[in-house]
Amino acid sequence: MTATLKVALLGCGTVGGEVARYLDTHADDLAARIGARVELAGIAVRRADLPRPGVPEHLITTDAHELALRPDVDVVIELIGGVDTAGELIRTAFSHGASVVSANKALIAAQGTSLHEAAAAAGADLYYEAAVAGAIPLLRPLCESLAADRITRVFGVVNGTTNFILDKMEVLGACYQEALKEAIQLGYAEADPTADVEGHDAAAKAAILAGIAFTTRVRIEDVHREGITAITSADITAAKALGYSVKFLAVCDRGADDRSVRVRVHPAMIPAGHPLASVRGANNAVLVEADAAGQLMFYGPGAGGAPTSSAVLGDLVAVGRNKLAGVTGFGSANYAGLVLRPMAEVSTRCYVRLEVTDAPDVLASVATVLARHGVPIETSGRSGCSLALVTHQATDGALAAAVAELRGLDHVHEVASLIRIEGTDPAP
Amino acid sequence: MTATLKVALLGCGTVGGEVARYLDTHADDLAARIGARVELAGIAVRRADLPRPGVPEHLITTDAHELALRPDVDVVIELIGGVDTAGELIRTAFSHGASVVSANKALIAAQGTSLHEAAAAAGADLYYEAAVAGAIPLLRPLCESLAADRITRVFGVVNGTTNFILDKMEVLGACYQEALKEAIQLGYAEADPTADVEGHDAAAKAAILAGIAFTTRVRIEDVHREGITAITSADITAAKALGYSVKFLAVCDRGADDRSVRVRVHPAMIPAGHPLASVRGANNAVLVEADAAGQLMFYGPGAGGAPTSSAVLGDLVAVGRNKLAGVTGFGSANYAGLVLRPMAEVSTRCYVRLEVTDAPDVLASVATVLARHGVPIETSGRSGCSLALVTHQATDGALAAAVAELRGLDHVHEVASLIRIEGTDPAP
Repeated sequence: MTATLKVALLGCGTVGGEVARYLDTHADDLAARIGARVELAGIAVRRADLPRPGVPEHLITTDAHELALRPDVDVVIELIGGVDTAGELIRTAFSHGASVVSANKALIAAQGTSLHEAAAAAGADLYYEAAVAGAIPLLRPLCESLAADRITRVFGVVNGTTNFILDKMEVLGACYQEALKEAIQLGYAEADPTADVEGHDAAAKAAILAGIAFTTRVRIEDVHREGITAITSADITAAKALGYSVKFLAVCDRGADDRSVRVRVHPAMIPAGHPLASVRGANNAVLVEADAAGQLMFYGPGAGGAPTSSAVLGDLVAVGRNKLAGVTGFGSANYAGLVLRPMAEVSTRCYVRLEVTDAPDVLASVATVLARHGVPIETSGRSGCSLALVTHQATDGALAAAVAELRGLDHVHEVASLIRIEGTDPAP
Repeated sequence: MTATLKVALLGCGTVGGEVARYLDTHADDLAARIGARVELAGIAVRRADLPRPGVPEHLITTDAHELALRPDVDVVIELIGGVDTAGELIRTAFSHGASVVSANKALIAAQGTSLHEAAAAAGADLYYEAAVAGAIPLLRPLCESLAADRITRVFGVVNGTTNFILDKMEVLGACYQEALKEAIQLGYAEADPTADVEGHDAAAKAAILAGIAFTTRVRIEDVHREGITAITSADITAAKALGYSVKFLAVCDRGADDRSVRVRVHPAMIPAGHPLASVRGANNAVLVEADAAGQLMFYGPGAGGAPTSSAVLGDLVAVGRNKLAGVTGFGSANYAGLVLRPMAEVSTRCYVRLEVTDAPDVLASVATVLARHGVPIETSGRSGCSLALVTHQATDGALAAAVAELRGLDHVHEVASLIRIEGTDPAP
């Protein structure tokens, strides 16, 4: 075997380090899979002086641009994160026909369409399996294995940090702050956890998933986003008592009209027996519903250096084979052009907890308001000054209008919780 | 779009009928995915006079050979099943450079290597995602997405019929014959259920999975096979009492020496909290363990016309795209050439139930025999003339020798059950 595939690595943090080491230790396997030996052309880093055990020192450079521009580089692996610089470097790679493997969900969610256009114009590939659900093979099965099926729903836990936090709250009875603190200590959350706990990370992944599943352009701004910071121990306890588990979900579903799609990330109660309820720790799991295939589930580690590197290297094999064969892979397809519909039109059941006065007619006045907005109450329970309701299916718009009016009632001090209930009905 | 992809369909039963209808109803989507319109060139059937709603009658022929041989056919979809005729038809397709999509696990397990050689010689593709785990994207993720990872174990429920039967026995307390009867009535089992309940179907799938996961040639004869016909209600009850669920498993694992592989299908007890324990009805689920990716799970419908057609059509899209680009896909790789090791070397824990006399020293003599063969007892429980044991890890060879000797003991009337315990330890 004389062919060589020259690879440039941009970024050498947790994932990049794993990739660099794996390229060395599994060189023969990779060569057998790709049909060419992989040669690492360079590793761009911000600080050259950090210790990087097992990473070839002579390949380290601080000039990422020059490395991405090298005409002998066949494939650029982008692992530096962030949007603007990473996007420029990827375009630089395409400018001389190099293919790109990336793990950068924020970038793909922000610029996926234009990056795919640049890749197509260059006759190059852009793969990013690692950007969603870490090691779990998900994007390629969605895009390729299910290419002939009509996907109706993609639904799952795609952020390990928030799942770790909610899981700790549920299993150990920890409060949100305690669980977050432990997640940071164990390295499951960043010191600034905003991107995870406010749902930005999940929203980017949801945009990517929906775009692929529905062959429609979905921007991160199209994704309705609520984080988990308002979830309390009382919510977790209430969910348990009702037979539910609180999970932070990404939900992408096709409208019943077959012309629209709704994409959202928010905490939700799901039945304790639901497959997603048993997703523990920092794992991810995604359910895919399709006309012919039925309901499929993909489960596994959602993050971490080694799992992410598995997905990156799997992409490298595919991109490398394509490069040698002179072809490109599936690329991006937006031909369906479904219309993005707002959250107000999404219909769910909902758990609502109100802090109320002890007047005997509180439930009557609350129920009257809800009924006027077309939000029927399924069950209600009162404990002291806390009134908990579960509503029947209603649109988010109707619910929001009803809740706004509830806030104005004399008997209602506070709308303490509002958590949607998912996983109890087929896709709308 | 002027390009056309001509497809011949061999077989028009449950799956074939779904495929033919889908090619018609989803023609535009398929064209967008493939980059060419699919034209059905012909549909070969055994009996032309059966009613086939939604299937274009003028394309029906009883001459499969002539259809597979047509030089204008780009892709042959083989859904007739069986080994010899199907194999000949696929070779006929390759003879003029057509690519092949098949759902035929028995054929691939028996002739996969030589068929892949014929495909490679012809510059054609041979894809068979539907052959294992129905609609679940599994073979391509194993072969492609995880191409760069080192898979250590593939482990799961790959036969829907037997899972349906065991599930009925567990959930409803049915006996084996009742559960089998219901499976036949509901269409989950054939009138002659031998291929499923004796494990031939699962063994073929295990051979295919192991071959792909370990890039090693695995023949169906290499697979240790035990069916589920000996499982009784008493076994299910005993498993429950011990906190286990009885599942029919396919287990493919890499030896600790990294040079060997063991492949087996047999019933096993797994912990009730194990992800595979909650596989209900006729669903399939496969766990994949890899060095970098960690533990992944793939779950979904394992059989049925629509789910299987989803996998067949997904393959058609890939094969069609390759055809248009003038390339072939991953193909088969046997470069690792691991050595197949016999069941006697596999180490598991085991549940053993003996019918014994009421002599007080029965346990002592049984334990002495087991100890002599290096099979330590973990727990034991006696109820009347029934002595139940759970052993520590021991090789199957040692266990078999011990059991043979137990059969000769005066105090032992019968070795009533012998069920391995899985899912409690990391891969050996």
